[in-house]
Amino acid sequence: MPERAHDSSRREALRALLEADARPRLRRLVHSLSPREAALLLESLPPPRRALAWELVDEEDEGEILVELNDEVRAQIMAGMESAALVDAAEGLALDDLADLVAALPDDITERIIRSLDQEDRQLLRSVLTFPADSAGGLMVPETVSAHPEMTLEAVLASLRAHPELPEDLYCVYVVDRNQRYRGVLQVRDLLGGSPDATAGELMDAEPRAIHCDTPASDVILQFQNIDSSVAAVVDDDGRLIGQITADDVVDALRDQTDREILGSVGLDEDDDMFAPVAVSTGRRTLWLGLNLVTALLAAGVVAWFKPAVERVALLAVLLPVVASMGGIAGSQTLTLMVRGLSQGRVQNSNVRWLLYKELAVGLLNGMGWAVVVAVVAFGVFSNLGVALIAAAAIAINLLAAAASGVLVPLILRRIKIDPALAGGVVLTTITDVIGFAAFLGLASMLLL
Amino acid sequence: MPERAHDSSRREALRALLEADARPRLRRLVHSLSPREAALLLESLPPPRRALAWELVDEEDEGEILVELNDEVRAQIMAGMESAALVDAAEGLALDDLADLVAALPDDITERIIRSLDQEDRQLLRSVLTFPADSAGGLMVPETVSAHPEMTLEAVLASLRAHPELPEDLYCVYVVDRNQRYRGVLQVRDLLGGSPDATAGELMDAEPRAIHCDTPASDVILQFQNIDSSVAAVVDDDGRLIGQITADDVVDALRDQTDREILGSVGLDEDDDMFAPVAVSTGRRTLWLGLNLVTALLAAGVVAWFKPAVERVALLAVLLPVVASMGGIAGSQTLTLMVRGLSQGRVQNSNVRWLLYKELAVGLLNGMGWAVVVAVVAFGVFSNLGVALIAAAAIAINLLAAAASGVLVPLILRRIKIDPALAGGVVLTTITDVIGFAAFLGLASMLLL
Repeated sequence: MPERAHDSSRREALRALLEADARPRLRRLVHSLSPREAALLLESLPPPRRALAWELVDEEDEGEILVELNDEVRAQIMAGMESAALVDAAEGLALDDLADLVAALPDDITERIIRSLDQEDRQLLRSVLTFPADSAGGLMVPETVSAHPEMTLEAVLASLRAHPELPEDLYCVYVVDRNQRYRGVLQVRDLLGGSPDATAGELMDAEPRAIHCDTPASDVILQFQNIDSSVAAVVDDDGRLIGQITADDVVDALRDQTDREILGSVGLDEDDDMFAPVAVSTGRRTLWLGLNLVTALLAAGVVAWFKPAVERVALLAVLLPVVASMGGIAGSQTLTLMVRGLSQGRVQNSNVRWLLYKELAVGLLNGMGWAVVVAVVAFGVFSNLGVALIAAAAIAINLLAAAASGVLVPLILRRIKIDPALAGGVVLTTITDVIGFAAFLGLASMLLL
Repeated sequence: MPERAHDSSRREALRALLEADARPRLRRLVHSLSPREAALLLESLPPPRRALAWELVDEEDEGEILVELNDEVRAQIMAGMESAALVDAAEGLALDDLADLVAALPDDITERIIRSLDQEDRQLLRSVLTFPADSAGGLMVPETVSAHPEMTLEAVLASLRAHPELPEDLYCVYVVDRNQRYRGVLQVRDLLGGSPDATAGELMDAEPRAIHCDTPASDVILQFQNIDSSVAAVVDDDGRLIGQITADDVVDALRDQTDREILGSVGLDEDDDMFAPVAVSTGRRTLWLGLNLVTALLAAGVVAWFKPAVERVALLAVLLPVVASMGGIAGSQTLTLMVRGLSQGRVQNSNVRWLLYKELAVGLLNGMGWAVVVAVVAFGVFSNLGVALIAAAAIAINLLAAAASGVLVPLILRRIKIDPALAGGVVLTTITDVIGFAAFLGLASMLLL
């Protein structure tokens, strides 16, 4: 069926029905949702209704929905499930999903789930579980189909037909040598359209590079943009094929990474429940506010230092936030460009000096331009030429400092292993506040008192 | 070959070599890069070296690299190319890539490129060009392979073998009725492992929903998370199959969307050249700074209104930025949660009231908690109980206002068709600045003067 818009309206209808408690229709509707949609529904319900909605989920759907839920909501729902129900939910999950789920379960239930698997799956699951979830090994599905280079296409096809259970994510056949080492890919196009007598070695595409299992998720995302394919092989230290990553899992990984960066930049965690109890959320937010209070007090300390100037000329207090915020805004622009550039590999050692000079030049030009505007406005409104000129000078200084900080802060944070996407903003605005206040009030103290 | 890290080190080496001007080795190295890597290299070079590097690109690689470049860098490079070279570069590109490229070309060159295509490709290209680039129709590749439901698997396979040129992105065969209407999908697994006598209609997976061609890119990304597959059919108003979208294109679309949101939130455009000339970049940044100046002057106006209070008690100026910034930080947390929740469909009409109450409760608790801390610190340092208590009250008020604004600003912006991800931050901090200043200085004027 074509569908024009996102399914939000269906979830909306569901939520309305949940209030009216119309059970039988509800069960059918919940069952008609994809696992991801059902997970979004559960995540967007306040906790009491969430428990109610979970009861409407078909047992056979439970596992796939649990996999899609964010960590906190999943833990909450699993806490209310019997161990037997958890083992049942795990049944029939794809191995990479099962690995994610198992990581969140108590050891005794994990053991029961592993024992319920057949020999081969058990081994495959153990192999996935050895990798961190945010590495290529953790993202991959271990089931792949492979052929040797000397096999003819006919032999490859016959072996596929004889395969007891071809994996769901079959988008290509990998070509491996006798030692399981990855050699290339037989695309579906070649499998279906190639000459039956040609060998796998002749037909294969040797160009797609395999991804090493230890590659971090963020680099897997970048490499997928290079290979321009919907699937990539994952290999171990010896170059042996141990699994594959499909682009739809990369979409999920990229979404998680974006959530982490955007929420992390304001001190939040992407795995937190938006509908957590007030006390829990208050506790989570408070640390970030406390950190900000420390930096704000640092800036306030600068103002306190120059209090005599403010006592003499109260107008300084009026223009103080203007000077600071212009620096903050200009610095955030440079910082944001740098952070994106670093994460995409566009900013590197060899061009950083060029970028620094450029940003300083932009800061200088914009600083001078807006200094003139502020001077004119301030003089026009308050008729105090001295303060107007000092504000202008402080803005020019602050925009220059903002440019330098915008380039250097992310580089320094990265050097000391702190993610610039998370901490860059706090550090930068502290610097622009302090420098803005100090420049403005310092100049005023020297020139006006 | 396994590769442990992202290829940034190779690009780094290249950039170093470019400086040393070692042509022949360079050509080989540039040729060894994927189109995306070569595009990143070009984007990360300052313009003069960029022209030099472009000369090192093999003619056959030019088209694919142009497609990967950001709009501005691409325009710059194409401006230096002859029309004949542009037509050559377009040759052999996939039709969705060609459509992106053609959108950036002058009409006469587009016409020459279209004329160079064969009849079928010409028609397919025209069909892609009718859709906006950021819609399902613009993201799709028009080439698909399909079968009718009553065909046996044997017949389907025979028709594939007889196909003159199977498309590169062949990840499944679509099942369509006589009117080309989408019915379901034959997975590779079924094609390779199914019984030859079974019909396409029996073997097909009817569950995957097709995506309507007018669906905006942001919804395509959400729907891909629902279907959990590496490929999806695209249909027109009548449900007819007109193309397919692969997950690797969704990865690119998601990356572009993230860039747009993150850069847009500080007034930048993801298509701008990071290495644009200083004058160009200065001009681009200046509008955002001007907008910020207006909002900063608005906040300064509040301080000016209460200037008599500051004249009497200069200490107010010291704590002013603390009150404003606590509100700004708390508001940004709520705003960020809301914007992410809205874009992922987790926030909707039916739960907004609940969220508002919750955020107000969190704001109230955190406001009271940090108010006490600020009161104690301010009194401890400045020994002025009146100002300390007023600052505490203002912080409590501002955090409550911040919570309300964090929930309501994105909803209001959305209602008036402004992207909350882009404008939310500016509006929110203006509100928290104004309310913070007004509450603090207003209370001070009433109680201290």
